[in-house]
Parts: sequence; C-alpha cells; structure tokens
Amino acid sequence: MKKDYVHGYSEREAIRLVNQAETLASLLHDDTSYPGDSLVLEAGCGVGAQTIHLARNSPQAKITSVDISKPSLTHAKALMDRQGISNVQFQIADIMELPFAEETFEHVFICFVLEHLPDPLGALRSLKRVLKKGGSITVIEGDHGSCYFYPETEEAVKAWKCLIKAQIGLNCNPLMGRELYPLLSEAGFKEVQVDPRVVYVDSSKEELVEGFIKKTIIAMVEGVKDQAIASGLITPEIWDKGIQDLYRTAEPSGTFFYNFFKGTANK
Amino acid sequence: MKKDYVHGYSEREAIRLVNQAETLASLLHDDTSYPGDSLVLEAGCGVGAQTIHLARNSPQAKITSVDISKPSLTHAKALMDRQGISNVQFQIADIMELPFAEETFEHVFICFVLEHLPDPLGALRSLKRVLKKGGSITVIEGDHGSCYFYPETEEAVKAWKCLIKAQIGLNCNPLMGRELYPLLSEAGFKEVQVDPRVVYVDSSKEELVEGFIKKTIIAMVEGVKDQAIASGLITPEIWDKGIQDLYRTAEPSGTFFYNFFKGTANK
Repeated sequence: MKKDYVHGYSEREAIRLVNQAETLASLLHDDTSYPGDSLVLEAGCGVGAQTIHLARNSPQAKITSVDISKPSLTHAKALMDRQGISNVQFQIADIMELPFAEETFEHVFICFVLEHLPDPLGALRSLKRVLKKGGSITVIEGDHGSCYFYPETEEAVKAWKCLIKAQIGLNCNPLMGRELYPLLSEAGFKEVQVDPRVVYVDSSKEELVEGFIKKTIIAMVEGVKDQAIASGLITPEIWDKGIQDLYRTAEPSGTFFYNFFKGTANK
Repeated sequence: MKKDYVHGYSEREAIRLVNQAETLASLLHDDTSYPGDSLVLEAGCGVGAQTIHLARNSPQAKITSVDISKPSLTHAKALMDRQGISNVQFQIADIMELPFAEETFEHVFICFVLEHLPDPLGALRSLKRVLKKGGSITVIEGDHGSCYFYPETEEAVKAWKCLIKAQIGLNCNPLMGRELYPLLSEAGFKEVQVDPRVVYVDSSKEELVEGFIKKTIIAMVEGVKDQAIASGLITPEIWDKGIQDLYRTAEPSGTFFYNFFKGTANK
C-alpha cells in the first residue's frame, strides 16, 4: 500500500495535505466531537493533517492514530508536538489486520483513506470488528467525479481526468464519495447517514480561491504530472494548457465546484 | 423560442414540471419571501410550476408572471385557480423586450429560464432595466454537468449526455448554474451571492428516490429520447441500457447527486 500511494510521500506533498486540511477543516470536522475519555481510533492518519482537527475538536478523548507508513507517522508525531496536541498516540498498523482486540474503541474515524484501499468494504468490516457495540464510525471521502468548473475547456477536463485515471491505475477509487452509503450499509453498520459537503468557489470567496482551487485542487492535479505524461495519458502540450485553464477558474470570472461526503453510522 | 423549448409542451411534460417543483420546492424556494404589497416580476413562468411556490411564500406580494408561450400561460392560470392563488397576474411577454417602464418592480424572480435563452446576459440586463434601484433579483438554475450517480455505467452516462447535447443543439446552456456568479456580476448587479443547493439521494431518502431520480431526472432524460435517436446521438440499444442503468441508481444500493444554484443580487 505504502509505495503505491498516489500522491507520493514528498515534503511538498506533506505541506499540501496540511494546507488542504486547514482550509477544509471547518467544513468537514466541526460537527465531529467525541466525549471526554472515549477511546477513538483514527485509521490511516498519514502525516496527521486530519489528526490535528480531530484532536482539537475532542481534546479530552483518547485517540489512537494508526498508519501503515512509518515516515508518515514520524511526520504526524512531529506535527502534533509543534501544535501542542497531547491526546493522540501513534501506532504502525495495517487497517486490514488491526492489532487490537474486538470491541476496543468507542468511535472510529477515517478520512480520505478508503479511496486509496483496494478493499474498502473489507477495511470497513475490519474497523467494525474493533468497534464496540453501539459505537460510531465516521467516514469522510471526496469524489473526483463531482468536480466541475467554469470556464470548462477540453484540456482542463483532460488534465483533471489524469488524476482520476492515475488513481484508478493504482487500484484506488477516486469516485469513493458516492459509494459511502452502500458500502457502510453492506459492511453491516446501522443508522447510516451520508451528507454531501459542498465546496463552491467564486471570486467572492478569496480564501477558497487560494486555499482550495490553487493550493488543494491544482496542486493535487500537478502531483500526477510526471506519471500522467510518462504513461501516455496526456501530451505535455495538452497538460500545460489544461493546468493553465484550471488556473483560469480561479480568476474573477471563474467558478469551481467540488463535493465531499461525510458518513456516520453505528455498530 | 417557443417552438424550440427542449422539453416540449406536452401534457405529460406539464405534469413532470409540477412534480419536480413540488419535490424541490422546499430546497429552492423556502428562503425567498417578498414583503406585502411589493411588486414582483416572475420572468418566464412557463406552466406555473414555480409560480405556486413563489406566490405561497409571498402571499401579500403583487406578482406579475410573464411568459412567451400562450398555452403555457393558460396552463399556469388554471393551476393558480385550482390552488386558490389570487396574487398573481399573467401577461404574455418576451423577456428580451419587456413591456414595462424602467424601474417598475421591486423584485425580480427567474427560475430555470436562463438556461433556455440564447442570450442570458442580455436577459439579465433587460430584467435589470425594469427593476427599481435597490431592488433584488433572484435566479435559480440547474447544472447538468453537476450530475453523477452510483453505479455509473458508460451507457447511463451516454444517455445523460444526450440531454446535455440536445439542449446545446438548441442553443441552450445546460451548464448554466456554474455561470450564475459571473453572469450576474457582468450584468452589473451588486452584492452578488450564489449558493449551491445540493440534491443527494440514497435509499434512506425514499421521497427523493421517487420524486427526484425517477419523476424528475429520468423523466427529463426520457423526454429527449426521440430526438436523441433520430439525430444519431445514440443507438436505441445503448439508450435502453442507459435508461435501465439510470433506474439502478434508484435501487437500494444506488446513489444520485445533482446540484442547483440559487443566486441573489441587488441593483
């Protein structure tokens, strides 16, 4: 899993992930707060970009954040230290083979992870195993098929689709958001509820023009440039025009739309 | 304009439009209410599907609803009579050449109309002319490029794209929603604000499975069947498979997503 992570593991990528989390934190995290002393599992914490918000919104909860990548965990630990967050312990673990007894946790949180797993249903079942009866799971995912913008050019759409194809090529699912409801239901969770969380950007929303269109979305697309060109998904000329056109959606006459999904359910 | 209206003018179409409006009324209309005695222009009222909600939410306002089609106005009048709505007067008029003096109305309302006009910017300027200084405009549009679903098959996407292509072929713009902000700004309106209004459907939302996926969306796609096949956009076999697959998104394991936009601005 580690070596195939579509976004790579560079320092630049770590910065992108933190910027993205800051911008979207309020939209995605503000309604998740766990009671004091509850045992929470964060599955697939990566560099800790979401862990910051999870821990801040539940300062009394005891959070265990696991990831399969040791370098990511090192990043995440350093980030928590810099932020003065002390209610998180980190542990290396594979979501598919969690080193915890059945019914260990009161709550499970998993954000931007299922899309990268070859067996998301198996992952949800594995998480359900370590969740206590009556406990909750919270799942957040994007859906790259939800993205559209104005002006829309053929080249911009092609560049965007390189991201989708690069993820599909790694057996990931960039269209995961729309599947949350059926997946949570099929994994046997109860009271499944899925809410769309919409990011709509026009020029009246300066912070999102910078923080979302440029620093999150275009940065993410640019991250697959080399592999997209090397694997013949796109020519360098169409790529450059596509990226240029995506930047036009961040100009005063442009608009941009993306949709996240947040699902909650109980065991 | 009349003869080219993409959805046609049949009785079945009138029923579809009323069903659609009932289902979506709360999402789109509930935050629009005009003060007593204010003069409101509804531009392009069609068969009155939106007029019902406009009039109910502003029972003391004096509403003038115009449309270019006389049969549609006849429908609309009959519908108001059946609903006991008496604060609307109907008048035949072309939005591009409104038979009203400058600054006649305190508020302008226009819903699902700009997408059908060859010159939406000209229409907004024409509406601005008859709006009083300080008055408001409210614009509601869909965006067919915002639509996605699960499961997603090639044939379902092709059938859906027939609707988009049929509208483009009539010089309409099925991707109007994303353009509302720049259009209202370019037309010279102030304090432009555009909000996305999301329709997300999974099997926990029975009413929307029926009222939106089946009676609104699939009914709308089915409305272009004959012209799509006749003009060679799609084969009858792919069409049938596509429609069948769209119905699968209304099954318990399916999900469906569509996005409306509501814009408000002042003169």
